Amino acid sequence: MNAEIIAVGSELLTPQRIDTNSLHLTQELNALGIEVIRKTIVGDDRERLAESVRAALLHAEVVVLTGGLGPTEDDVTRDAVAAALGRSLEFRQELFDAIAARFARMGRKMAEINQRQAYLIAGAEALPNPNGTAPGQWLENGDRIVMLLPGPPREMKPMFADHCVPRLLRRMPPQVIRTRVYRIAMMPESEVDQAIAPVYTRYSNPVTTVLADIGDIQVHLRARCTTTAEAEALLEEMGSQIERILGDRIYTREGEPLEAVVGKMLSARGETLSVVESCTGGMLGERITSIPGSSGWFVGGLLTYSDAMKIELAGVDAELLRRRTAVSEEVAVAMAAGGRERTGATWTVAITGYAGPPDGGEVFIGIAGPSGVSASRIYAPGERQRVRRMATQAALDLLRRKLFGVLGHSASVTH
Amino acid sequence: MNAEIIAVGSELLTPQRIDTNSLHLTQELNALGIEVIRKTIVGDDRERLAESVRAALLHAEVVVLTGGLGPTEDDVTRDAVAAALGRSLEFRQELFDAIAARFARMGRKMAEINQRQAYLIAGAEALPNPNGTAPGQWLENGDRIVMLLPGPPREMKPMFADHCVPRLLRRMPPQVIRTRVYRIAMMPESEVDQAIAPVYTRYSNPVTTVLADIGDIQVHLRARCTTTAEAEALLEEMGSQIERILGDRIYTREGEPLEAVVGKMLSARGETLSVVESCTGGMLGERITSIPGSSGWFVGGLLTYSDAMKIELAGVDAELLRRRTAVSEEVAVAMAAGGRERTGATWTVAITGYAGPPDGGEVFIGIAGPSGVSASRIYAPGERQRVRRMATQAALDLLRRKLFGVLGHSASVTH
Repeated sequence: MNAEIIAVGSELLTPQRIDTNSLHLTQELNALGIEVIRKTIVGDDRERLAESVRAALLHAEVVVLTGGLGPTEDDVTRDAVAAALGRSLEFRQELFDAIAARFARMGRKMAEINQRQAYLIAGAEALPNPNGTAPGQWLENGDRIVMLLPGPPREMKPMFADHCVPRLLRRMPPQVIRTRVYRIAMMPESEVDQAIAPVYTRYSNPVTTVLADIGDIQVHLRARCTTTAEAEALLEEMGSQIERILGDRIYTREGEPLEAVVGKMLSARGETLSVVESCTGGMLGERITSIPGSSGWFVGGLLTYSDAMKIELAGVDAELLRRRTAVSEEVAVAMAAGGRERTGATWTVAITGYAGPPDGGEVFIGIAGPSGVSASRIYAPGERQRVRRMATQAALDLLRRKLFGVLGHSASVTH
Repeated sequence: MNAEIIAVGSELLTPQRIDTNSLHLTQELNALGIEVIRKTIVGDDRERLAESVRAALLHAEVVVLTGGLGPTEDDVTRDAVAAALGRSLEFRQELFDAIAARFARMGRKMAEINQRQAYLIAGAEALPNPNGTAPGQWLENGDRIVMLLPGPPREMKPMFADHCVPRLLRRMPPQVIRTRVYRIAMMPESEVDQAIAPVYTRYSNPVTTVLADIGDIQVHLRARCTTTAEAEALLEEMGSQIERILGDRIYTREGEPLEAVVGKMLSARGETLSVVESCTGGMLGERITSIPGSSGWFVGGLLTYSDAMKIELAGVDAELLRRRTAVSEEVAVAMAAGGRERTGATWTVAITGYAGPPDGGEVFIGIAGPSGVSASRIYAPGERQRVRRMATQAALDLLRRKLFGVLGHSASVTH
């Protein structure tokens, strides 16, 4: 089964507002095995909304509308859906009485315009709304289902859970959805795709989605089956092939960020980490400390943005700095070694590079650990924040590989 | 003129992701006087996308598509738009050469599939993409305009600004748009709004937009006139009233972030800054060094995440730490004073607090400068990243006020 979601409201077409109801609805629909194939956001325009409903009904078995059920002239959802289906609107005394009773309970007078909310599309069932005045509506039109839900999340969410989910379940074969999320650092999207396309093009279930961020690729696998065991088996069958291809380029299959993976490894070993940052100016420390519990394995570090700080805080040799410049393998090594000495951490990661033009993108990563210090060069041109993000990603990934190496599992996958 | 925005990508139909590109595009289109009448989010499905494009062209004079220009089978936007318009795709050698050159510059081999990105819809102009491999496309079809833009915001935004806005302006009646962007730190949106509503509700030109971020409110004024002088006069007339109300709560009227404002002040005074961070773990340093040229006034600092680092790196007294705990006014003062001594900067800002539950939100900011050290407490509960962002915002705003105070302009506006 598949669905379309239509959010109604001119305020959702301004630069400030976004339709977030659809995220909740997508999650709920997916959990039922219903795929969302399109989302539309329409203003308070009767004709355009009716047209969007008609377009949705061409392909979607389920059409969910949110918003536009209020009492004002602007609230056009009832009218527009009735027009799209060629049905009339009918006044329902029992809905009117319920709305009037709600106003009475709150000690308020019911405004004349609230009467609009007592109209149902012919053939619709009313869905009770304990959190607001607008009842929802549930319609079946041949093999299509159309739902009209209120816009406010605190009205929409319980109505969907209590009245729509049970009705949908009655119409569906039982099924479960299981997902697995691989993440890969420092590999371009096109390379990941080219490597795993021979696997994922052979499977329509699990469904594969590849998402790219800076220095970070996510591969989502989603299996839909009638039992959990079957879904897990499919994920394992397909996932093991992807793991064979990408090997230790994969840093997780549970979707967590690289800093969390490195943190788990350090925690498990009872080791600690510190940083010495130049061009990233604190971004690496910020990423690390965004992980709850990082105080268990991260001690802190040094921000050596200026050359003077590299000398005074990290103990880099002034003559070396002059001779090799701050952006060099030798200085990255000296920063890491000096930082490890100052902080007493098991591991120290140092970053020095050019984030801005004209030479932006050249970065050296130094790593000092129990068995010595080494440095690597990466080149990732682009605008300032991209270079910096790439530098922190490379630093964390190099540390992850070091930790593997020490454990003697350099060819295995981190899970 | 009106527009529809179509975001392409199956990942945008999952419960985790949302199309945020359309907010930026809506703002930009509105600034040109173009209204957005519908937004659609479609998966990587050629037929369904072609149908959405056809539907959009029925009503919208401008159709903006984002995403689906990548090199994989999943990237269907080129094909779908060509199909919707009944046009063919044409291979362009010059685009192929540009993509190949980009790969060569980065020292990477171009994958075969990237060739797909060298195809243009017949009659389209290519829009250069300095931040990625996918060129955009600009098409005119009778009185309709169709734009194909890449999905990643860092590629889409500059392409729209540099290549789409000028082309749109050429097709529009001559008019001048002038904007002024006030920013206010550490004041709730509702308070800002309540304070300035009496002013902005009296003007339909300039148009006012209030945007809220964590600890940061932006008030955009947009004047649309036939001459620049007229637009500037309107902005000044309305803006001066807002400045009288908000006074030194406004930290800029040019829209730049707080770290840039602080940097300009320090630069002008020939002074330097360092940081000592605990719960923010580097976020303050990261924000500061995101500003190009920050090396002129920022020297670096200390990440004292653990108590041991507060003692060893910043010289905080162990007995004081034990007695007052790390999250206290006294320790914030000691961190700032110790950091200033270690780094030799004119000013040192220290942050210590609880970012996570159960006490999340209590933060102390210490500032050490030429005339002594002081500390302030802020309380901003919420989830981890929110508390941390608020802490860095409060720290920068306190420094800004200190710098004013020293200059004797504490009641004026920072511009």
